Amino acid sequence: MSRMLVLTEAELRRVVRLDLSAVACVEEAFLALATKAVAMPPILRLDIPDYRGEVDVKTAYVPGLDGFAIKVSPGFFDNPKLGLASLNGLMILFSARTGLVEALLLDNGYLTDVRTAAAGAVAARHLARPDAAVATIFGAGMQARLQLEALALVRPIREARIWARDQHKANEAASELSRKLRIPVTALPDPQAAVRGADVIVTTTPAEQPILVAGWLEPGQHITAMGSDSEHKNEIDPAVFARVTYVADRLSQTRRLGELASAIRTGAATADQSFAELGEVIAGKRAGRTRADEITLADLTGTGVQDTAIANLAASRARGTGAGHSIDTKAEAGDAA
Amino acid sequence: MSRMLVLTEAELRRVVRLDLSAVACVEEAFLALATKAVAMPPILRLDIPDYRGEVDVKTAYVPGLDGFAIKVSPGFFDNPKLGLASLNGLMILFSARTGLVEALLLDNGYLTDVRTAAAGAVAARHLARPDAAVATIFGAGMQARLQLEALALVRPIREARIWARDQHKANEAASELSRKLRIPVTALPDPQAAVRGADVIVTTTPAEQPILVAGWLEPGQHITAMGSDSEHKNEIDPAVFARVTYVADRLSQTRRLGELASAIRTGAATADQSFAELGEVIAGKRAGRTRADEITLADLTGTGVQDTAIANLAASRARGTGAGHSIDTKAEAGDAA
Repeated sequence: MSRMLVLTEAELRRVVRLDLSAVACVEEAFLALATKAVAMPPILRLDIPDYRGEVDVKTAYVPGLDGFAIKVSPGFFDNPKLGLASLNGLMILFSARTGLVEALLLDNGYLTDVRTAAAGAVAARHLARPDAAVATIFGAGMQARLQLEALALVRPIREARIWARDQHKANEAASELSRKLRIPVTALPDPQAAVRGADVIVTTTPAEQPILVAGWLEPGQHITAMGSDSEHKNEIDPAVFARVTYVADRLSQTRRLGELASAIRTGAATADQSFAELGEVIAGKRAGRTRADEITLADLTGTGVQDTAIANLAASRARGTGAGHSIDTKAEAGDAA
Repeated sequence: MSRMLVLTEAELRRVVRLDLSAVACVEEAFLALATKAVAMPPILRLDIPDYRGEVDVKTAYVPGLDGFAIKVSPGFFDNPKLGLASLNGLMILFSARTGLVEALLLDNGYLTDVRTAAAGAVAARHLARPDAAVATIFGAGMQARLQLEALALVRPIREARIWARDQHKANEAASELSRKLRIPVTALPDPQAAVRGADVIVTTTPAEQPILVAGWLEPGQHITAMGSDSEHKNEIDPAVFARVTYVADRLSQTRRLGELASAIRTGAATADQSFAELGEVIAGKRAGRTRADEITLADLTGTGVQDTAIANLAASRARGTGAGHSIDTKAEAGDAA
């Protein structure tokens, strides 16, 4: 008999939260990427233009972790017309030793939200100034909220600003975050004013034209750009490449999908230019921030190692607490009901 | 509330069999590949050398089919030491309209077995002589058995021969198939003798050196090679390319993984050489067999459209018969148990 653990989103929300252990889990995944024989194939992408659908499949094997996750992330942008969320998805955890299925994580993107925000915290921990206290978030969606929460776990944030195209949503996010984090969070209508005096700026939008202008940046700032995950997206003015220390989550990916891709297109960077990866900075193999007045830019496109790491965490927590239910994957008809 | 249908291997074996409707389902998938805006990205491949593991992920969107499947096929070749099968796997069926998960097919590779054998029948139907009566199978594993069964669905097979390196296994397969198909099936120790006078030859082995020699071929024969699914496998002597009409399941794939890949390596074919695909032959867009004395070769590496087609068939049959059980994918903790 072979059993598979099934966990729903509600159950996963109980066992995995955006906290320092989620941050540590994702940090270890990036470290592994730079120090171990990680296998992380390119993202599989399926487009279904008939229904404005796009599906990404990510995976990675991380030596030392019991399982590898395969994550399927569908985005169907006509769904709201049907009263459904655009983004969905699930992860499947397989034993890295036998390939047998171990757990089905019906997270509807929740674990991705957590591991993405956790990567923002990891980037800030290794690239932002230790005394970073003022945070600016571009965007007012789920990641805008989670990125600020994640940042507050690793830096002494005492004030935050939100800028978003939709001022109403920016106001909502600001008041919600202010209550939750117990710090002043202000929605600002002018993005340049929002950047002025900030220590950390996190961009979380699906912008296709730069929303952060190079000339606005000030010495000592750290920027995390996590909105771009496809060829046509671009949040950061490529001219910043002349001023910043750039760190990729995965260079082979940011050259295609990240802010680096836009910089290469405009000639602000070259395709064969060498940059550090976040894991290499964590491992001490390459320099991140070396001076307080340096400007750093982390380009996060999302990696399979983060998915494998958070899926292992979720399954292990669920087993520890008895969450979820298990089904017999070899059951005869009738046995399973 | 959102529900996902879960089907185990035993349940799937009851609702999907290797029969003419499975053949028709796969035939339509190949036809769609040649005539519709099918989206079929390259295979995602994850290698886990620490445990001799390799994982393939295949998918395709076929316009007209309600769902798209994502198939995960792990092969872990140290599993037999642990008393486990090397090959496992599952398919997940998503709505092509919304991206929501619809069914989890815990088939342990069964549906792949069926759709692979069905593709052999489709190839024979469109490439073998209509009066083909003598079949030779190279190999004595699951596909050896299923390919002969599939062939017998579409051609008036009245005699078969089995050749395999392991004569004992060849004998077993022969006597089993003879009972099942009620025709004489003989295990022959000499592969050349097995090929002599055969109308259809199907190679189903993981050979890395050719096992079918060009000089053995006779006018009018059809060969289906379905063993090769990776760069280092090779069943067919590349010299046959000078004598045969070659048809690929998917040319972009057989150039990398199929018999064509080996022919390109040895110079027997060129990388940019134009060949027909099976779907184009079905659609009448390109010629297959045009004369009775022609030798035809179908190179089958396995495609995501076959997976999507068989997964849709399985889910629709299961819904029709009430097979499987459904779980609430949005359930609160406790509800699901």
